[in-house]
Amino acid sequence: MGRKLTGWHNARIRVRYSEVDRMGLLYHVNHLEYFEVARSDWIRKFWRSYRQIEDDGYRLVALEATIRYLKPARYDEELTIRIKPADWGRSRITFAYEIRRRGERQPLCTGETKHCFTDRRGRAVRMPEELRKRLDEIIKKG
Amino acid sequence: MGRKLTGWHNARIRVRYSEVDRMGLLYHVNHLEYFEVARSDWIRKFWRSYRQIEDDGYRLVALEATIRYLKPARYDEELTIRIKPADWGRSRITFAYEIRRRGERQPLCTGETKHCFTDRRGRAVRMPEELRKRLDEIIKKG
Amino acid sequence: MGRKLTGWHNARIRVRYSEVDRMGLLYHVNHLEYFEVARSDWIRKFWRSYRQIEDDGYRLVALEATIRYLKPARYDEELTIRIKPADWGRSRITFAYEIRRRGERQPLCTGETKHCFTDRRGRAVRMPEELRKRLDEIIKKG
Amino acid sequence: MGRKLTGWHNARIRVRYSEVDRMGLLYHVNHLEYFEVARSDWIRKFWRSYRQIEDDGYRLVALEATIRYLKPARYDEELTIRIKPADWGRSRITFAYEIRRRGERQPLCTGETKHCFTDRRGRAVRMPEELRKRLDEIIKKG
Repeated sequence: MGRKLTGWHNARIRVRYSEVDRMGLLYHVNHLEYFEVARSDWIRKFWRSYRQIEDDGYRLVALEATIRYLKPARYDEELTIRIKPADWGRSRITFAYEIRRRGERQPLCTGETKHCFTDRRGRAVRMPEELRKRLDEIIKKG
Repeated sequence: MGRKLTGWHNARIRVRYSEVDRMGLLYHVNHLEYFEVARSDWIRKFWRSYRQIEDDGYRLVALEATIRYLKPARYDEELTIRIKPADWGRSRITFAYEIRRRGERQPLCTGETKHCFTDRRGRAVRMPEELRKRLDEIIKKG
Repeated sequence: MGRKLTGWHNARIRVRYSEVDRMGLLYHVNHLEYFEVARSDWIRKFWRSYRQIEDDGYRLVALEATIRYLKPARYDEELTIRIKPADWGRSRITFAYEIRRRGERQPLCTGETKHCFTDRRGRAVRMPEELRKRLDEIIKKG
Repeated sequence: MGRKLTGWHNARIRVRYSEVDRMGLLYHVNHLEYFEVARSDWIRKFWRSYRQIEDDGYRLVALEATIRYLKPARYDEELTIRIKPADWGRSRITFAYEIRRRGERQPLCTGETKHCFTDRRGRAVRMPEELRKRLDEIIKKG
C-alpha cells in the first residue's frame, strides 16, 4: 500500500554543540525542538511560511506532545527529521515525526504533536481553507 | 486519602525572556525543559545531586515524555513546577508533573517523563538501592 | 568610598543540566543568557517589569555585548549574577556584570552589554523619564 | 589585494521559531550561538570534526566574545554566518564573524571570539600542529 509513508517530508539538522549534554548525547528536550524545525519546514513547503500565517492572525497552538527516545544521537551527527500530518479535523491537526541518523533506517526517536488553530486571542478557529485543501491532496496521493 | 498528592515537590521558575515566543507566551519546548529543572531539584532534595549520580557512573536516560498544554504562561510570570514519582520498577522510574502559575490551582500544563537507569555505556542497570529506599519511604507516608 | 560597588544587584541562578556542555561546564553562550536574566531582575526591582515596558511601546534593543570567561562554572552550581548600570545617555544604557560562584569573591565571568531604547518600529527614543530618575538616585547614593 | 576576505567560510542557518523574541526578532543571545555553529563548520571543513578534537583530549575554551548588533534578523529568514580566523598564537586563536541576510551585503551583526586550546583538565596547551599548518596555508593564499 505504501499509504503510511505518504506525505513524509524530510528536514535536515546537524546536532549543535550546545544541544548535547554532559554525555555528548543530544539532550532530550531538543528532540521536541527538532520536531518544530521540521514542522516549520513542512508548513513552508506545503503551504506558506508560518511567519505569514501569524501575520494573517492565525496561530498554531500546541495542545499535546509525545516523544519516544529509542537511541541516542550525538554531537555533529547529521539527522533527518521526518514529519507528516497524521490526523486533522475542523481546527486541529496532529503531526507524526521520526528522527533518523542520515542513511539509517532505524529511527532514533518517534513522536507526535497535536495543535489547534486559534486567532490572536487564543480562541479556536477553523483551519484555513487553503491548508485543508493541501491536506486533502496529500491524502488522495496516498 | 490524599494518596495521589503524596510526594509532590515544588520547584519555582520565573519565565525568561528568551523562553517566550513571538506571542509573548512560553514556547512549548520549554515546558519539557522546566520538567527537567524540577526533576533535578527533586533528585537533589530526596537523594543527592544528579551530578554526583553521574560521577558515580549512573545515568538517568529519558525513554518517553508526554506534555499536555492547557493554558499559556507568559514572560516574567512566576511558575511552580510540581513533580512526583508516579511509578517505578527495577531500573525504570516515571515522574508526573504539573505547571501552575504561583497562587493558582488550575494547572497550565501536565505531563510525564519515563526514564531508565543505565551505566556509562547505556546499558540498563538496577536503580541505586538508596533511591529505591527513599521511594519506598515516600509511599509509606502516603 | 565604596563607590564602585554602588548599585550592584544580585540575581541567583542554578546551572541547568541543559546549559552545560560535553565537559560538564556551563556552555559559553549561556553566560550572555544569564546576563539577561539579571537585567530583567534589575529592571523589575529598580523600575518595573520589562513586560510592562514593552506593553508601553518601548524596547531595550541590544547594541553590543562583551563577555570575558575567567573560570568555568559547572552543572548544578549556584551562581550569583551581579549587575549594575555602568553608563547611560539620552537613549542608551550600558550594564556591567560579574558572575560568581555563591560565596566566592573571584568572578568566573565579567562582561558588559550596551542597549538603546527604541519604539516598536526600532527608532531610537529618549530613555523613559522615570528610569532616568532612578538612575540618578543610584548615582547620588554612590 | 582581497586579503581581507581570504579565508571567509560561510555557514547557513535558518532562524528557528524558538530563537526569536516577543518582537519576532532574533534574540540577541542566539547570535553567539550562531557563531558557534559557524565555528564548528569551519573546523570540520578546514581540519576535522570538533568531536574528534575533544576525543583526542583537546578542548577549545572560550576566553572572550564580542558581538555587535547592527540590524535585526527575523524568524524564518535564511542567514549566512561568515567566519574566518583573525589571529592566532601558540595556544590561542581568534575568529571573526559576520552575519548577513542571504543575498545582502550589509552585515546584521559582527563579532569576534577568542579561544585557548587546553587539555582535559583545562591547562593551556600548544595548538595542534596540523591546525597550525592549515592556518599557515590560509594566510599564504591571502
